[in-house]
Amino acid sequence: MQQERPTKERSTSFGYELVHTDRETGARAGILHTAHGDVPTPVYCPVGTQATVKSLDPRDLAELGAPMILGNTYHLYLRPGADLVERMGGLHVFMGWHGPILTDSGGYQVFSLRDLRQVDDEGVTFRSHIDGSTHRFTPESVVRIQEQLGSDIAMVLDECAEPEDHAYNAEALRRTHLWAERCLRAHGRADQALFGIVQGGIFADLRTASAAHLASLGFPGYAIGGLSVGESKADMHRILEVLAPILPTEKPRYLMGVGSPEDIVQCVARGVDMFDCVLATRLARNGAVFTPEGRLNLRNARFREDPNPIQADCGCYTCRTFSRAYLRHLIIAKEILAARLNTIHNLAFMLNLAKGARQAILEDRFGAFRDAFLAAYETADAQARRANRDAFRASRNADS
Amino acid sequence: MQQERPTKERSTSFGYELVHTDRETGARAGILHTAHGDVPTPVYCPVGTQATVKSLDPRDLAELGAPMILGNTYHLYLRPGADLVERMGGLHVFMGWHGPILTDSGGYQVFSLRDLRQVDDEGVTFRSHIDGSTHRFTPESVVRIQEQLGSDIAMVLDECAEPEDHAYNAEALRRTHLWAERCLRAHGRADQALFGIVQGGIFADLRTASAAHLASLGFPGYAIGGLSVGESKADMHRILEVLAPILPTEKPRYLMGVGSPEDIVQCVARGVDMFDCVLATRLARNGAVFTPEGRLNLRNARFREDPNPIQADCGCYTCRTFSRAYLRHLIIAKEILAARLNTIHNLAFMLNLAKGARQAILEDRFGAFRDAFLAAYETADAQARRANRDAFRASRNADS
Repeated sequence: MQQERPTKERSTSFGYELVHTDRETGARAGILHTAHGDVPTPVYCPVGTQATVKSLDPRDLAELGAPMILGNTYHLYLRPGADLVERMGGLHVFMGWHGPILTDSGGYQVFSLRDLRQVDDEGVTFRSHIDGSTHRFTPESVVRIQEQLGSDIAMVLDECAEPEDHAYNAEALRRTHLWAERCLRAHGRADQALFGIVQGGIFADLRTASAAHLASLGFPGYAIGGLSVGESKADMHRILEVLAPILPTEKPRYLMGVGSPEDIVQCVARGVDMFDCVLATRLARNGAVFTPEGRLNLRNARFREDPNPIQADCGCYTCRTFSRAYLRHLIIAKEILAARLNTIHNLAFMLNLAKGARQAILEDRFGAFRDAFLAAYETADAQARRANRDAFRASRNADS
Repeated sequence: MQQERPTKERSTSFGYELVHTDRETGARAGILHTAHGDVPTPVYCPVGTQATVKSLDPRDLAELGAPMILGNTYHLYLRPGADLVERMGGLHVFMGWHGPILTDSGGYQVFSLRDLRQVDDEGVTFRSHIDGSTHRFTPESVVRIQEQLGSDIAMVLDECAEPEDHAYNAEALRRTHLWAERCLRAHGRADQALFGIVQGGIFADLRTASAAHLASLGFPGYAIGGLSVGESKADMHRILEVLAPILPTEKPRYLMGVGSPEDIVQCVARGVDMFDCVLATRLARNGAVFTPEGRLNLRNARFREDPNPIQADCGCYTCRTFSRAYLRHLIIAKEILAARLNTIHNLAFMLNLAKGARQAILEDRFGAFRDAFLAAYETADAQARRANRDAFRASRNADS
């Protein structure tokens, strides 16, 4: 094994430009330069777990203007296998998407397996969720896999701990930092940027130490892992506020696995540049769609004869073409097309949200943009509270 | 009820032009004029049972050049309901497809329910396959439903009998003819053509009587029902040969629910102008795709690293963009996108087959076209026979 100190800036085709910082909030507008094109930030990346953003093809993604998508190393490693993807020309060629791709390291998925994995300082052994077969990830192997996949942005292997256990987080952080250095050493692909991942749960001391250590290694970008995994929103926001002044200003910041529309707005305000989340696509497949006023569940009988599009001022193919009544029919009739049409809309919503945020930042009005969005958008929590309240009132009326 | 003799030619916007008859085979090339555009014949109509061709949107169908699609009256009546579709502006507006639509009468579906239906001279009472609720179709009600749906071509209510029971076919034919007259009387929509349906099982005497009787009623087109429902291919071909000289030359002939690629070629040779069949789309969702050499089952391990498209000379989006290896991955990983991409190819194959047949007819070389197709195309039956033979040989080798 090579023992030299990891060198800075392995990637030759990757770069980040901070274009403007919102005067009031500190929200950032920038551009990522990647081997497969530029990505304006803040950016929301649709999730393409198994070499497809579920129900969509690459042409759909291009029409939506998706600047970058995410692939999951854990899933692709298991099926169809990184060797196969490499022999087929890499992930871009394999799936027919020639825009930027970001891959995670598989760390999050492996540590989500809980009973099916065992970690030591050298790596982590786990059982496949598909067939129970045994596998091992090491820092070197996940770098190698991502080099085979050929993503534009790759991630180091990290250990994702329970967010509220300080002792475990300290121990996991030690390993995560060891692994970060080993990943840097192992990484060689010049057309791929390797990001470090800050861990440390909800603990400011650990997060501060993690950000400082990783910054000293000179990664071309920094992911923030271990958030939105069960901790409160307040904790998530507090940790982002801890990290904002510590992470290198001139490098992009990627909040992994986040989030809902309101999360995007809240976290952009705290300096995050990049997001990915399955929520938009998963909800779409369940018949729930985003509007500026909040989520609609299209299964609801009140949409049975609703001739309106999901969102009147949305320009997506679904809203230009189909009524809520038609979409509801497809959902109730269990038609495959429902997943696709709802996914198109939800991704358009998320991508437009990121675009709108960027424009607001460029014009130094992101605070007002955020406030207006949050005032209009009823979150799922608030919807549930309102439903409970309405049910309570209805029961009182029935009793009286 | 009105008692006047049904009048001829109710439809004002519908017409059929016989453009050319192949000199050798009698195969026909023509054009259907409908309220939503012209349809070159022979035509294969993709099936959009529940107001969607499964997994595709109307833009996909337009890109494929689908000249006409089919909607199922039975399914649309049950869900979302013809009243709703009518209030939403009709089936074209509801599903966003502005090309020609053909609807069946629901007769075939209802008579497929067997134990769930009861027929009398006035109509047929049946139980919904969705929730077991009781419904009744009469000649008048299925005409009314199809008028509400607003299809370009509608079908009379018919009784679809077991193909090999002469007595039942004779009795069913009596009702079918009664109902055909009642449908004609009930039909009023000038922008919709109502076709009669010839029945009579595999019996030349009944088919001859049926064709003659329906021809005397002056329908703008004739469907051939009750074939490809369990009888032999030889019987199907024989009945088509009985009908070819009897059905009015100047009217289109629609063979309902047929068929496979080889069926299309064989039945065009016997004078059929219009086809619909779920086979292409259903097989696609199961991972089986058409090529000029026969079906491929993309689940097969031999496609694991196959970098080729399904069919090298196919111009469809799937073949232009994706390898068999990628499609196999999507199928094995149970990704929704597999259904869509395979459906796109199989429909492209069927539509190109119909186009190729038409061109060959126009050039008086349809016999050669048919022979070349059938020589190259290994049917599913032949594939199964070959697989059995190979397995037999392998077992002999293993024993020896």
